[in-house]
Amino acid sequence: MAAPVDNPDQLITSSDPEHPANLIPSLCAKFWTLGWVTGTGGGCSIRDDDLVYLAPSGVQKELMKPTDIYVLSLKAQDPSNRHQQLQRTYLRSPPIYKPSQCTPLFLAAFTRRNAGCCIHTHSHWAVLVTLLLEAKGNSSVFEINNIEQIKGFGRGFQKTGNLGYHDTLRIPVIENTPHEEDLTEYLEKAMDEFPDTYAVLVRRHGVYVWGDNVHKAKTQCESLDYLFQLAVEMHQLGLPWISNIPQIAPQRT
Amino acid sequence: MAAPVDNPDQLITSSDPEHPANLIPSLCAKFWTLGWVTGTGGGCSIRDDDLVYLAPSGVQKELMKPTDIYVLSLKAQDPSNRHQQLQRTYLRSPPIYKPSQCTPLFLAAFTRRNAGCCIHTHSHWAVLVTLLLEAKGNSSVFEINNIEQIKGFGRGFQKTGNLGYHDTLRIPVIENTPHEEDLTEYLEKAMDEFPDTYAVLVRRHGVYVWGDNVHKAKTQCESLDYLFQLAVEMHQLGLPWISNIPQIAPQRT
Amino acid sequence: MAAPVDNPDQLITSSDPEHPANLIPSLCAKFWTLGWVTGTGGGCSIRDDDLVYLAPSGVQKELMKPTDIYVLSLKAQDPSNRHQQLQRTYLRSPPIYKPSQCTPLFLAAFTRRNAGCCIHTHSHWAVLVTLLLEAKGNSSVFEINNIEQIKGFGRGFQKTGNLGYHDTLRIPVIENTPHEEDLTEYLEKAMDEFPDTYAVLVRRHGVYVWGDNVHKAKTQCESLDYLFQLAVEMHQLGLPWISNIPQIAPQRT
Amino acid sequence: MAAPVDNPDQLITSSDPEHPANLIPSLCAKFWTLGWVTGTGGGCSIRDDDLVYLAPSGVQKELMKPTDIYVLSLKAQDPSNRHQQLQRTYLRSPPIYKPSQCTPLFLAAFTRRNAGCCIHTHSHWAVLVTLLLEAKGNSSVFEINNIEQIKGFGRGFQKTGNLGYHDTLRIPVIENTPHEEDLTEYLEKAMDEFPDTYAVLVRRHGVYVWGDNVHKAKTQCESLDYLFQLAVEMHQLGLPWISNIPQIAPQRT
Repeated sequence: MAAPVDNPDQLITSSDPEHPANLIPSLCAKFWTLGWVTGTGGGCSIRDDDLVYLAPSGVQKELMKPTDIYVLSLKAQDPSNRHQQLQRTYLRSPPIYKPSQCTPLFLAAFTRRNAGCCIHTHSHWAVLVTLLLEAKGNSSVFEINNIEQIKGFGRGFQKTGNLGYHDTLRIPVIENTPHEEDLTEYLEKAMDEFPDTYAVLVRRHGVYVWGDNVHKAKTQCESLDYLFQLAVEMHQLGLPWISNIPQIAPQRT
Repeated sequence: MAAPVDNPDQLITSSDPEHPANLIPSLCAKFWTLGWVTGTGGGCSIRDDDLVYLAPSGVQKELMKPTDIYVLSLKAQDPSNRHQQLQRTYLRSPPIYKPSQCTPLFLAAFTRRNAGCCIHTHSHWAVLVTLLLEAKGNSSVFEINNIEQIKGFGRGFQKTGNLGYHDTLRIPVIENTPHEEDLTEYLEKAMDEFPDTYAVLVRRHGVYVWGDNVHKAKTQCESLDYLFQLAVEMHQLGLPWISNIPQIAPQRT
Repeated sequence: MAAPVDNPDQLITSSDPEHPANLIPSLCAKFWTLGWVTGTGGGCSIRDDDLVYLAPSGVQKELMKPTDIYVLSLKAQDPSNRHQQLQRTYLRSPPIYKPSQCTPLFLAAFTRRNAGCCIHTHSHWAVLVTLLLEAKGNSSVFEINNIEQIKGFGRGFQKTGNLGYHDTLRIPVIENTPHEEDLTEYLEKAMDEFPDTYAVLVRRHGVYVWGDNVHKAKTQCESLDYLFQLAVEMHQLGLPWISNIPQIAPQRT
Repeated sequence: MAAPVDNPDQLITSSDPEHPANLIPSLCAKFWTLGWVTGTGGGCSIRDDDLVYLAPSGVQKELMKPTDIYVLSLKAQDPSNRHQQLQRTYLRSPPIYKPSQCTPLFLAAFTRRNAGCCIHTHSHWAVLVTLLLEAKGNSSVFEINNIEQIKGFGRGFQKTGNLGYHDTLRIPVIENTPHEEDLTEYLEKAMDEFPDTYAVLVRRHGVYVWGDNVHKAKTQCESLDYLFQLAVEMHQLGLPWISNIPQIAPQRT
């Protein structure tokens, strides 16, 4: 557990652009231009060993500053208390703002998958994919195969290497809840059922994507958004997401 | 009523990027990249207590400068004289340009809703939504529910808290008039009929969105544009805007 | 006619960002981000009294520099020699590059409409509109009415004021020719048939838009591209471009 | 063959923004904003005489730095050993990263077409075009004619001049393989069958585009992406890619 900190603002003060307190604002500004965090929606959290850096609730994502960041100790969290949102102790809090309701969802990725970064977007491609699956009978998994960009995903937790071109990418879909923190148990259940997934779609809401580090979380999130957009366009053109393409060369691992 | 000003240009001169005379140009430049204020269309106004800051008519929104801004006193306006456009007295006027025809519409948001900021966009998503409603029989209200982004809206004027996921967002639609200032009475009527709305759509024209302050007006405008885009895409995919989703967790507040 | 110039590079050397030799590169960079001048397509020319500033052929529009600009004297052109492209004398030429084949089309806007700026885009919205009209029986005019953005256009050459909301915007369409300079006579014919138009569409190619000055040419071009995009989207949604909306308030000029 | 280099980092150190080691990162950053190299997909290579500069595998394209670049000698490659990926000797390698699997495909463009630059994108317009052709019966060539932007392409290898408006642009499509390097023999076969093409589409994957120099590769890639987007939109609107437009003026070379 992190030792008490004399001056908590030291936790978010650094001249290194790769420091989480600098990186979260610059990433969120980029995500805003991609339409992922429109109107204060969505967010991003980075874990550095035991320290978790979090964007606050209700901030304009392209205007965020390092001083807006919350910091907490991962080990200090009580895993049995999922809804401790109000009681949660932060090592450092911004002077204004409230903690994000996404916090327990980000923590789930950190504790259950040892993730180093988790991104939450409201990308309308993600929302449209969940709506199309709903219209097809409330399907709770998005599946696509035989698209090169699938190779942008790792094979799964504690596995080495990436998915192959002919592999099927499967992303579970959970139903939305009125309060974002109430999603946590459904997100954790989806993680249990899909142990290798790096993402969970939330119906009519968006997607949570994580990775071992910032690089992997961000590039997996980009690849997934690319695939969601492609999937919606394929649907509009009457093209199926799953196909049976003959393999013309060996797929090595 | 604001005291007479020795040098009116003091009203638009500040080194603070959050000063309305600096903020309107930087916001409008951002809105231009979003396609909201194409070809000098649309606009933005900020109220600071009694002072109202307004973009002029016919300016390229991404090139606006603080010296282009009009300033007027809200209390000095005659509420009974809606069409006083030509006679209106400004505390500060730019050397070139004419006042915007949007002025009385912005003032309606300030006087009737105590808004701190009002944004007017020509976003083609807004226009397409009004066209789709027209094709469905001239419906005068846009309704959508069970989409997470709905939570980006306040519950209404002088109410606390935001809409919930299962709540239905309702935005009234008024018919367009040849002269923008003539919209004022219809906008005010819509405000009366929909006392909790923070926005009014104008058929074949665009949308007016306001908020208690710049932050709220801007993030509500972003959330609304997101929902308009989603609504058009849902329509193209044959998905209804209103659905009856079973509630799987309590909606507090 | 412009006097001979000792050092032709003086014509394109200025520290004023509004100087045509600086403005053409900055406008073209902006147009590139809008998708109007992809792959060296499209272009822009500005007239300052007798001097005409032109982008060269085959330059990457977002990388253009003032030193790339051609300058010629409008009065020195022989109007009877439309195809003098090769023999044309320039007051200033860039060391590399060839003159643009768009040159005689830009000159037509300057000589016949006294325009101060002419923009040529390959916007795919413009191309799609011409394709949709072709599919409807080779129609040679694009028409739309009852859209607010129509008010972004002047009423016509040597007329004052702008189009009204209920007015119909009419843009002639000419057929494309293998060589761009051969379009000139068709463009001029369209100008004769539509004396009030500020733009001519070229089938399967793009659009030429002009205005009395840079501001008007640029904002009219933006408004037109907005309307082309809207028209394609309306077509996809089964909505007609021409409608008969009841007028609910007087349309003053 | 390049002489041994004392300090390999000299090969990627230059203050000239046009030096390949500076140009590849700036081009890739631009391509990222165009959606061509999402999630570390795609890439770019430049050849300067015998020296080939290559982006590494798995790098975020908008964040690439000159120090990330590989350099190899083209003459030092063994053309009979297509799969020498692992054994390939680099004149300069970045401290981290692995060589890109695209390397042998870029080399094919350099050795067989004497190209100066080759760009690989995952543009979803390219992917959608290959999917539409697949749905039409696995067609292995994309064809479009009578669109102005076609003039953005050279007539072919060792030919002078560009395609004309009425010419048909033909881009071969090869099937994707699980490993990108295995595409090489199919890419080379497509080059043999289409000796004049400057691009090869890869089904469900993207496109490779080259040119005699960076300017030509980049502008041809832009023009092609424009045409792919237009083709998808034309398909959605029921418009054919190949048409029989009467020629209204002579097509000179």
